[in-house]
Amino acid sequence: MPAHWIADRTKCFDSSGIRKVFDLGAKLKDPINLSIGQPDFDVPEPVRQAAVNAIQSGKNGYALTQGLPVLRDKLQGIVDHQYRHADRQAFVASGTSGALVLAMMALVDPGDEVIVFDPYFVMYNSLAAIVGGKVVYLETYPDFRIDLDRLAAAITPRTKMILFNSPANPTGVAASREEVEGVARLAAERDVVLVSDEIYRSFSYDAEFISPARFNPQTLVIDGFSKSSGMPGWRVGFAHGPRAIIQEMIKLQQYTFVCAPHPFQWAAAAAMDLDLTGYVEAYRRKRDLIVEGLAGDYELVVPGGAFYAFPKAPWGTATEFVTKAIEEHQLLIIPGSVFSARDTHFRISYAAPDAVIQRGIEALKKLAKR
Amino acid sequence: MPAHWIADRTKCFDSSGIRKVFDLGAKLKDPINLSIGQPDFDVPEPVRQAAVNAIQSGKNGYALTQGLPVLRDKLQGIVDHQYRHADRQAFVASGTSGALVLAMMALVDPGDEVIVFDPYFVMYNSLAAIVGGKVVYLETYPDFRIDLDRLAAAITPRTKMILFNSPANPTGVAASREEVEGVARLAAERDVVLVSDEIYRSFSYDAEFISPARFNPQTLVIDGFSKSSGMPGWRVGFAHGPRAIIQEMIKLQQYTFVCAPHPFQWAAAAAMDLDLTGYVEAYRRKRDLIVEGLAGDYELVVPGGAFYAFPKAPWGTATEFVTKAIEEHQLLIIPGSVFSARDTHFRISYAAPDAVIQRGIEALKKLAKR
Repeated sequence: MPAHWIADRTKCFDSSGIRKVFDLGAKLKDPINLSIGQPDFDVPEPVRQAAVNAIQSGKNGYALTQGLPVLRDKLQGIVDHQYRHADRQAFVASGTSGALVLAMMALVDPGDEVIVFDPYFVMYNSLAAIVGGKVVYLETYPDFRIDLDRLAAAITPRTKMILFNSPANPTGVAASREEVEGVARLAAERDVVLVSDEIYRSFSYDAEFISPARFNPQTLVIDGFSKSSGMPGWRVGFAHGPRAIIQEMIKLQQYTFVCAPHPFQWAAAAAMDLDLTGYVEAYRRKRDLIVEGLAGDYELVVPGGAFYAFPKAPWGTATEFVTKAIEEHQLLIIPGSVFSARDTHFRISYAAPDAVIQRGIEALKKLAKR
Repeated sequence: MPAHWIADRTKCFDSSGIRKVFDLGAKLKDPINLSIGQPDFDVPEPVRQAAVNAIQSGKNGYALTQGLPVLRDKLQGIVDHQYRHADRQAFVASGTSGALVLAMMALVDPGDEVIVFDPYFVMYNSLAAIVGGKVVYLETYPDFRIDLDRLAAAITPRTKMILFNSPANPTGVAASREEVEGVARLAAERDVVLVSDEIYRSFSYDAEFISPARFNPQTLVIDGFSKSSGMPGWRVGFAHGPRAIIQEMIKLQQYTFVCAPHPFQWAAAAAMDLDLTGYVEAYRRKRDLIVEGLAGDYELVVPGGAFYAFPKAPWGTATEFVTKAIEEHQLLIIPGSVFSARDTHFRISYAAPDAVIQRGIEALKKLAKR
């Protein structure tokens, strides 16, 4: 096949580094797997049953582009109750990623600048590249806090969007109320679209989750069911924001994702009735296990949410450290270079059984003493 | 919300005209609905059961980006057996539309020309516009056959892709072996990517289906389970083609669709074991019903496949005719302007119960006599 057939945009990014670790890990017999970005609990039984009922009762054709009323109206009700924004509309997307893709397509013109905080979720820079956007990185090391003065200075006339994510992947850090409010107000003042990726919203351990949409009614919120309800393979997410943006995203959905999987929209509606307290408590405890287990041996910003920790590698580059961890201890973790211009930290996912977390901590203690 | 926030690419296309007819139809009490582009049979029982089993046995997390081995290996086996191309690789996408989106992203640079036969499937021109491609339309009226000399003349140094679809939406016309071979060889000679959308492959009534991949090993084939297995709401499709293109599509899938819905990949693998003869026979009979029912009153190219017929409006523009059909007979059909630069024909979908088709024919007979 002629090489010139391939479009230039594909050259902007490589296969995800996470997959490279997965490929390495696939060769291991008994890995300590702390690399997975999905819950270690299965979909709760009533939600699985709702999916089965939908399938068996013939809910298998195309769904409405904007989402089934059973789910969309329920989301809209909650959004209206929470924010009371006259102009805030919700719709159902094919996962949080699907909503992010549509947001980029709807908002970012070639050459537009998208501000991303470094370290960042791996998809952000690739998605911006796909639509021809230019990513402007804002470092948040060493404490992963947002410096509002530096953010203000990074905004130029070409800035279209700030991509905000709290609790964050890969650091697990939850922004403070001051940071959230500051980012929200700055975006409003400077006429920049604020996109808030709230997929880890439910997993907030130390303080109530606060969305920037509380302070900036034009915030576009991206959310989903993959993490909160253990259904990442079901591809149901949602977005809510200014009606004009949501309408463009729905129009684009017609020509791309078509609709979120029909039966799983019924299941997601059922998932909204679940009490997640037990899951969140379990993950808070896992967070504490990691923080206590690494204390003294690793430099770590205590993560306030999500199910990640992002300690500093105690020696070498993060890639060198992770390579050793895999080779010597079958410990699967992700080097920071996957999420960052720096290769100094590594991501631990503690969405794993306690026994696996304990084995991971023991391996990390040995590795630190090298 | 400031209007300048919205990206320019959204201005290249409007909300699909099909949706406008749906919206009109939603207000009718007892419509004669011949507008739906999906099978009127439900997912066969063993396939539904395979989905349920997958859900209940915890197959709900992320699936591999390229597709689950249970499905992908099975597809690869069939593709290898059928084509014996050393370089042909298969992967699992989120529906045929998902595969089309990824193909466009992987292949079309801004300014590249994409040749589309008019009338065309509504998604083609919008998808090309989303990635910045320029659509070059090639009319096929009045017989919906491909003139190879005109196709050859339409190819320029900027032509990246020919989008081929047989059996076709909206005409139902199946290309002859000579047309298929001619397009395939021309694309190869002129160094243009040939994308063959084969979603209606199973619904071929008068001759064996022939893919251009038989004559051009670098053809990228787009296919899926939505139509053949009655599962459009399950969002499982696939593509096969030159390894280098497929690898780029898989890379792009990581950052966009992530994976096709996990449990439904297990179900699609089960669907591959189904015998579709009964469904195809039923649809052939429905095709005959329409062709016989309209004979004498309508100018119609006999459709050889899919589940569409595309007769000429007997008076007025197609939009005027369809408006009258909806107003006077609650008959939902789609004006040709949705699929074409011309507004002269209209699309009938006969994926409907026989009684509905009969009511439709009676209404059309009355409308013709106006």
